[in-house]
Amino acid sequence: MRKPIQVEEAIDRVLEKSYEGEIEYVSIENSFHRVLGQDITATTDVPGFDRSPYDGYAVWAASTEAASASNPVVLEVVGTQGADSVWKESLKPFQAVKIMTGAAIPEGANAVIMKELTQEFRKDGKTYVQIKRKVEAGENISRIGEDMKKGSLLIEKGTVITPGISAVLATFGYHYVPVMKSPKVVVIATGSELLEVYKPLEKGKIHNSNTYMLQAQIFRAHGEPILYGIVKDTFQNVFQAVTKAMQMADIIITTGGVSVGDFDYIPKVYEHLQAQVLFNKIGMRPGSVTSAAVVGNKILFGLSGNPSACYVGFELFVRPYIRAMLGQKNCYLKRARAILTKDFLKPNPFTRFVRAKLSYHDGKLVADPIGRDKSNIVSSLIHTNSLIVLPGGSRGFQAGSEVNVLLIEDEEGASSWL
Amino acid sequence: MRKPIQVEEAIDRVLEKSYEGEIEYVSIENSFHRVLGQDITATTDVPGFDRSPYDGYAVWAASTEAASASNPVVLEVVGTQGADSVWKESLKPFQAVKIMTGAAIPEGANAVIMKELTQEFRKDGKTYVQIKRKVEAGENISRIGEDMKKGSLLIEKGTVITPGISAVLATFGYHYVPVMKSPKVVVIATGSELLEVYKPLEKGKIHNSNTYMLQAQIFRAHGEPILYGIVKDTFQNVFQAVTKAMQMADIIITTGGVSVGDFDYIPKVYEHLQAQVLFNKIGMRPGSVTSAAVVGNKILFGLSGNPSACYVGFELFVRPYIRAMLGQKNCYLKRARAILTKDFLKPNPFTRFVRAKLSYHDGKLVADPIGRDKSNIVSSLIHTNSLIVLPGGSRGFQAGSEVNVLLIEDEEGASSWL
Repeated sequence: MRKPIQVEEAIDRVLEKSYEGEIEYVSIENSFHRVLGQDITATTDVPGFDRSPYDGYAVWAASTEAASASNPVVLEVVGTQGADSVWKESLKPFQAVKIMTGAAIPEGANAVIMKELTQEFRKDGKTYVQIKRKVEAGENISRIGEDMKKGSLLIEKGTVITPGISAVLATFGYHYVPVMKSPKVVVIATGSELLEVYKPLEKGKIHNSNTYMLQAQIFRAHGEPILYGIVKDTFQNVFQAVTKAMQMADIIITTGGVSVGDFDYIPKVYEHLQAQVLFNKIGMRPGSVTSAAVVGNKILFGLSGNPSACYVGFELFVRPYIRAMLGQKNCYLKRARAILTKDFLKPNPFTRFVRAKLSYHDGKLVADPIGRDKSNIVSSLIHTNSLIVLPGGSRGFQAGSEVNVLLIEDEEGASSWL
Repeated sequence: MRKPIQVEEAIDRVLEKSYEGEIEYVSIENSFHRVLGQDITATTDVPGFDRSPYDGYAVWAASTEAASASNPVVLEVVGTQGADSVWKESLKPFQAVKIMTGAAIPEGANAVIMKELTQEFRKDGKTYVQIKRKVEAGENISRIGEDMKKGSLLIEKGTVITPGISAVLATFGYHYVPVMKSPKVVVIATGSELLEVYKPLEKGKIHNSNTYMLQAQIFRAHGEPILYGIVKDTFQNVFQAVTKAMQMADIIITTGGVSVGDFDYIPKVYEHLQAQVLFNKIGMRPGSVTSAAVVGNKILFGLSGNPSACYVGFELFVRPYIRAMLGQKNCYLKRARAILTKDFLKPNPFTRFVRAKLSYHDGKLVADPIGRDKSNIVSSLIHTNSLIVLPGGSRGFQAGSEVNVLLIEDEEGASSWL
């Protein structure tokens, strides 16, 4: 007899067995969307020097004190300051140095006036600039360290690399970026009813869809999927497949074979592996027979063969484990409060996870349950981006009420369950 | 003299020049996160036959009419129905066929009773099942086509492939999936102040960060980035680089060189290419000098060399063009209404796009402006997932007011501007 446990308890049993994976280095070109393997701290001040945010003229502000539209000040342009033309002397009063965007402020200057507000002219072989308004000391100078201060913590380990993070990594010269190794996850599909995707349909059989669905879920979770393929449901086949898979990966997922039918060999496989079973029944729908077990530092997840139950089981239990391996602190699914758009009036003794599309309307979050809420349905997964949580033991839920929703397209996670 | 145009007008000029790209086929294993190249319609009914959602016994419901806890009905188990063991006869009254999850309902049966609610026993060499409650006709049968009906449109062309879509594609036997070719986008960084990411910092120089930021933005937008590298800002260098890049890609991005400085050669390059300039000044901050031009069916984007301005320019103008090439109907950025968390009291003649982090609090959307709102700032991009739009000509915005926000981590887009 199997004893159902609560969802939260099941996740915690999985997380207790988790451990952090290793880091590796990849070139910055290959680092997008990987998970940072260490904290990123500013190794220099940015800007690294006081610099000009505009094209214009670096001046000593006091030289422009008397400037006005009717009485422009004229300064002598004594040089140019850019990346290739550095002006090495110190600026004197009533001198100006032409300066390019991003160039260092020359010594002696304490302000920049934008090019658009000036007029340059030549006279007697010299260059001058006419300025029609007073410039304040400090005007138009990007100060050393104003963007990022040397030594400050910028990005935490476990963060997924976004375009903005790529920019920061490049700024500090990370040609190679420390990232977490993607946990390897094998997917074994069990069931004699399964056909390879390239084979024509036969009466009584279905194409193996869970393998490709899980592959995509593993990619989304920043894991590295390994597709074992289809295994016919005999004990020998399944046992052999799981044994081989344990040599290939850290995480082994089987689909199907976890129920009480004559061909459900997963419990027996766990037994023969002398695995420590973490759970084999959960007080939830869909996927109440979702199972997990450990052998050494390998974890085995027995997900349902029903697509919707399989999908939910992956997000609820496998994803937190992958997050832990990726060194992420927030391993649980992120949650939000949203307005339910349909009635769920039938009382349910178990917690239900309803596939839903979460969207915004006028600044508010709205959760739309999608399609038929049955465990063997595939089509409801097309637009699923979240799971509505309907706690068990309640008397049903009415459209318009506020519910908890778990986000599955999210990269941040949460530090605790609901 | 450059004449500024409105942001919406600039996007529309870009979209007017866009055209749809081609499709290609990739194996389903490589299709995750690609963009669907054609509508997906159900090619068969799913389920393809009436089937059992549970392990149990298929029966003729009327046989159980009299069943109760005190007066169980006993049916003879005449066979087994699974993927490998098909029961070929027609079921008679008071007979049952043991049935596996997902197996076809045998002829003559019109209901299934779950295994957990029965007791099987053997007597005189025959197998029987005891049933303690009445089963309704139609109970526990997944009907043919109840998940997906043959011929129904399931997923539209231009949709990004998610795990749920992978499941549907596999269900219909798509070993190869039609996807849009990823538009090729070359990135050329101009500027003599730029250092390769692997070189040590020098006074007056900065690492080339825009190239890697844009690479990541291109990936996020489902384009294929090609990194041209750094080009020193002389007319000859920039002209040659752009000419070469036009042979490599559909979209050519340059960063830097669009302003009014002595080394800003992009306008001159457009002139020498006899390009049709779509715009070279926009009434916005940051990135007012963002430019675009076309030569034949190639489009050239001249983005700012300032990281934040470059980032915003890509999302506002390049991304819609890439979406159009990907056959997506909703090319504009998706928008939401959210509550502003900081004051922006300074009136601004131009529309401002403020880098922000959008999040949920108690079912409401909240937009947090990040860091210093200057065009040359990098650090604010770390947590940016959206852009707050502050329309020009207004008298400033107070914390707590509702504002429009553009979503940049979104995959759906919108069919129009704000």
